[in-house]
Amino acid sequence: MALPSADSIADIQAFFLQHVPQMAAGQISLNHYDGKRLSLSAPLAPNINDKGTAFGGSVSNICLVAGWSMTCLVSRGCGFDGDLVIAKSEIEFLRPLRSDIYAEVDMPDAAAVAAFAKRFSAKGRASMQLEVRVSDEQGELCARFQGKYALVVANPND
Amino acid sequence: MALPSADSIADIQAFFLQHVPQMAAGQISLNHYDGKRLSLSAPLAPNINDKGTAFGGSVSNICLVAGWSMTCLVSRGCGFDGDLVIAKSEIEFLRPLRSDIYAEVDMPDAAAVAAFAKRFSAKGRASMQLEVRVSDEQGELCARFQGKYALVVANPND
Repeated sequence: MALPSADSIADIQAFFLQHVPQMAAGQISLNHYDGKRLSLSAPLAPNINDKGTAFGGSVSNICLVAGWSMTCLVSRGCGFDGDLVIAKSEIEFLRPLRSDIYAEVDMPDAAAVAAFAKRFSAKGRASMQLEVRVSDEQGELCARFQGKYALVVANPND
Repeated sequence: MALPSADSIADIQAFFLQHVPQMAAGQISLNHYDGKRLSLSAPLAPNINDKGTAFGGSVSNICLVAGWSMTCLVSRGCGFDGDLVIAKSEIEFLRPLRSDIYAEVDMPDAAAVAAFAKRFSAKGRASMQLEVRVSDEQGELCARFQGKYALVVANPND
């Protein structure tokens, strides 16, 4: 996907809602970003399964969006533009989630951001690895996700 | 999730549509099962992103459903009942998918099915590892998914 033109979480949210119907279907919301940590949530109802717990695909989706959004914030923070795609991900489901879904992702450390910036500047392509944690409303950890995201110079024919 | 009461793909599809709103949102369809291979598809429109390609979360979702459905078919084929949950998964996105989404999953080999059946009979809990392949309408491989699914004797309090 292209990077949204601005870099606030409201802009990213608006971009997803405009372009990605699945984001609207899951009612995923980017709630808070303090410059280091990004928090998201989604109500249980549109993401439920037959057991009244969160559907695994929905848990996976909010993680994917969390990691994408953080990579977008880091990329825009570096002054970069391009297309941002997920290259691979892993998720471990630790326990059933019986409430609204909460996801958190931290900005990578300074050395990882510097390496990302250096590589993108030199090669027009760089990737970043992020971990997303999913919790229930009591703060119990319910899933752990690792995603690798790649920023690439946009193809003008795309 | 509980296993649907019957074991045809129409029953599984009806179960998902009744209980999992995300399945309806993505219009995921179980198309064909020949006793060895299960094929699914989803139209691009409800699963699109800003580039006109399939959203990663949607690709991940159809894979999750494919693996769950195959584990359901194997479990019912063994005469088992229980709750079937995804324990972990990995997905690699190989190239952008610019058409409707096609997913295929093969039944595990006979030895894997036998080991699954033996363990579930003895322990009331067994897991199965499945690979799902996602292709575009030209048959080009676009993503590869590995999922581990666990069947557990249903908790009567659940």
